[in-house]
Amino acid sequence: MKARVFVTLKNGVLDPQGEAIRHALGTLGFAGVEGVRQGKVIDLDLVETDPARAEAAAAEMCEKLLVNTIIENYRVEIL
Amino acid sequence: MKARVFVTLKNGVLDPQGEAIRHALGTLGFAGVEGVRQGKVIDLDLVETDPARAEAAAAEMCEKLLVNTIIENYRVEIL
Repeated sequence: MKARVFVTLKNGVLDPQGEAIRHALGTLGFAGVEGVRQGKVIDLDLVETDPARAEAAAAEMCEKLLVNTIIENYRVEIL
Repeated sequence: MKARVFVTLKNGVLDPQGEAIRHALGTLGFAGVEGVRQGKVIDLDLVETDPARAEAAAAEMCEKLLVNTIIENYRVEIL
């Protein structure tokens, strides 16, 4: 079973990488870009076949390793 | 208008970061993780209000800056 985890910075947390992209887009002539935020997507290939248990396992992985819950939000999607 | 870009490594491209995560999950006692791939998600806040034009602009940004199309795939989603 495949699970996809989205990790994004919480609102208010400074995102220097996103700012760098925004600046670079401006330099390349892309007008009208008001803001850029960069996050991570992690695709997990799990042996578990029960969707609910797979989602719970992925959420536990997020809490214990994948996500810094002080500054990041996450969302788990079962594919 | 908000656009979300998913950038993932193409199949067959080595993903050391994903491998590191897989190894770390094993060390933490998470069994049953067969594979991990890490990608990026980039949220763009665009002035453009027409969904089709916003999508086209985001795709152009991908081709010119955000994505290394030799080793990465991308998908644009208009939110």
